Amino acid sequence: MSKRYDVVGIGNAIIDVIAKADDAFLETEKVAKGGMTLIDADRADSLYASMGPGIETSGGSAANTMAGCAALGVRGGFIGRVRDDQLGEVYMHDIRAVGVDFTNDLAKHGLPTARCLILVTPDGQRSMSTFLGASTELGVGDLDEDMIADSTITYMEGYLWDKEPAKQAFLRAMDVARAAGGKIALTLSDAFCVDMHRAEFLDLINGKVDVLFANEAEIKSLFETESFEAAVDAIRGKTQVAAITRSEKGAVILSGSGTDTVEAAAVDRVVDTTGAGDQFAAGFLAGLAQGRPMGDAGRMGAIAAAEVISHIGPRPQEDVGALINAAVD
Amino acid sequence: MSKRYDVVGIGNAIIDVIAKADDAFLETEKVAKGGMTLIDADRADSLYASMGPGIETSGGSAANTMAGCAALGVRGGFIGRVRDDQLGEVYMHDIRAVGVDFTNDLAKHGLPTARCLILVTPDGQRSMSTFLGASTELGVGDLDEDMIADSTITYMEGYLWDKEPAKQAFLRAMDVARAAGGKIALTLSDAFCVDMHRAEFLDLINGKVDVLFANEAEIKSLFETESFEAAVDAIRGKTQVAAITRSEKGAVILSGSGTDTVEAAAVDRVVDTTGAGDQFAAGFLAGLAQGRPMGDAGRMGAIAAAEVISHIGPRPQEDVGALINAAVD
Repeated sequence: MSKRYDVVGIGNAIIDVIAKADDAFLETEKVAKGGMTLIDADRADSLYASMGPGIETSGGSAANTMAGCAALGVRGGFIGRVRDDQLGEVYMHDIRAVGVDFTNDLAKHGLPTARCLILVTPDGQRSMSTFLGASTELGVGDLDEDMIADSTITYMEGYLWDKEPAKQAFLRAMDVARAAGGKIALTLSDAFCVDMHRAEFLDLINGKVDVLFANEAEIKSLFETESFEAAVDAIRGKTQVAAITRSEKGAVILSGSGTDTVEAAAVDRVVDTTGAGDQFAAGFLAGLAQGRPMGDAGRMGAIAAAEVISHIGPRPQEDVGALINAAVD
Repeated sequence: MSKRYDVVGIGNAIIDVIAKADDAFLETEKVAKGGMTLIDADRADSLYASMGPGIETSGGSAANTMAGCAALGVRGGFIGRVRDDQLGEVYMHDIRAVGVDFTNDLAKHGLPTARCLILVTPDGQRSMSTFLGASTELGVGDLDEDMIADSTITYMEGYLWDKEPAKQAFLRAMDVARAAGGKIALTLSDAFCVDMHRAEFLDLINGKVDVLFANEAEIKSLFETESFEAAVDAIRGKTQVAAITRSEKGAVILSGSGTDTVEAAAVDRVVDTTGAGDQFAAGFLAGLAQGRPMGDAGRMGAIAAAEVISHIGPRPQEDVGALINAAVD
């Protein structure tokens, strides 16, 4: 019987605060360039006080992917935790406004809605400092299990492993999805995140995950190798599908039908790389939902990634479906 | 003796929520295209619920102008009222982060920080629905009179006349500035706003305002004429300086040194006209602060306006000073 959702995402629900900064500012503030660092409330206050004017927009890795999926006609849902504060209201509005089902209530107690301070350097690279706030309390109780059971794919971010309750929610969601005949997709999220949880992530991809997303740094970190080829050899056959992205070098898709190499889509000017991996995943998942061959799904991911890095903000602004139709038969 | 500030702005302190919309949506929701409509909390909730995903950014007409001024080296301050909520904190951060002095405390009681729901249609036009919130309580008590007295120019928005306490603050600020030997600048803000307050605005420009900013629709509304030339004739000599903007037709500057006609600066693509008038005023005020001839100040305004309409958001993103240096000797 057909499921109600093509993809349900579970992840940290975060408002992005995006500001321009130069490399000297990153050094002074000791922000790891290109990475994601968890920060506490005091650090969030002091970094925010010293950074430039921002724009606020809904973010969060898996939620960005779900927003991108929805823009491509994927029937999607999202599970995440925000407070009943102004940023939480903004978050709930935005995810629903793009057409993603979101059934969680605004939490009445606990920490405020999560914020990610994103500093974008002139080279377009984004460096993220995340105050997880309400997302640290995401747990099993926040799962809409009916939604998960009614989805073809349950898509989760590795970031969930940074906090124990969210990790438990991840594991429970996996069980619910599996029991209902659904597939599990995972993105490794960040090289440091992989470094923290390597043994458990290796266990996950050893039969528990069907579709894996990773970038070059993450997959190298997972297998503790400096060689991309060695990392690809190591992951081959471990999951039904593995989509490994390499920024301007495109992507490699491993699956039962072999290896597909996908070129990066052209970009006039890289403005802000925030969301590149998230939108690659969105395009790719949309391709899977449409039953496309792996190579085509990869090209859809590449086009969606190219769109999002050409502007500020982690979710699509142009009609990505039209861009894909113009490029992919 | 030289003053500490070149320009101090007073205005409604508003967080903009910017979303794309088509003309059919404006019709369905009865949003007046190109205008600014005041809305209450219920209407704000219902319009927000039906509109698309937004990005949040600090706005407010006079504050946008002060942000643009600061980017051009003007020593500026801003006076406005926000609550001690998340959007109020964002607002205070952003205005200070651009280098504008802001001495108001976050209000501990009353309505939440103001929000303006801005719908941008494919033609780049912006249509604004404003929930004034905490700004409705802006009054004489919020004025930092030392700041006003220590400024060469006090710049105020006509929107302040929409609420009685803010109007009283406007009048008090005018007295303080005048007593300290400062000049008064006014922007008419909006054609409907002019229509509401015509008699009082006519009284203001009859000797109480030194520098007037208006666009074509506003100046025509002020003098109840369909003829731009008739409106220009009517304002001539009423204020020391009058800067009348005409979108793609450029601007006309009236002053003691005669009439200067300024061409609009080139724009590749009009993305979002939000802030065009505010940034024209910023460039022009920066020109005045630098002691430039009127025509040059007008060109600075035109360049600043062209920059802001080429991207989403009401404040400059590119280095407007560099654009001006490349174009104005």
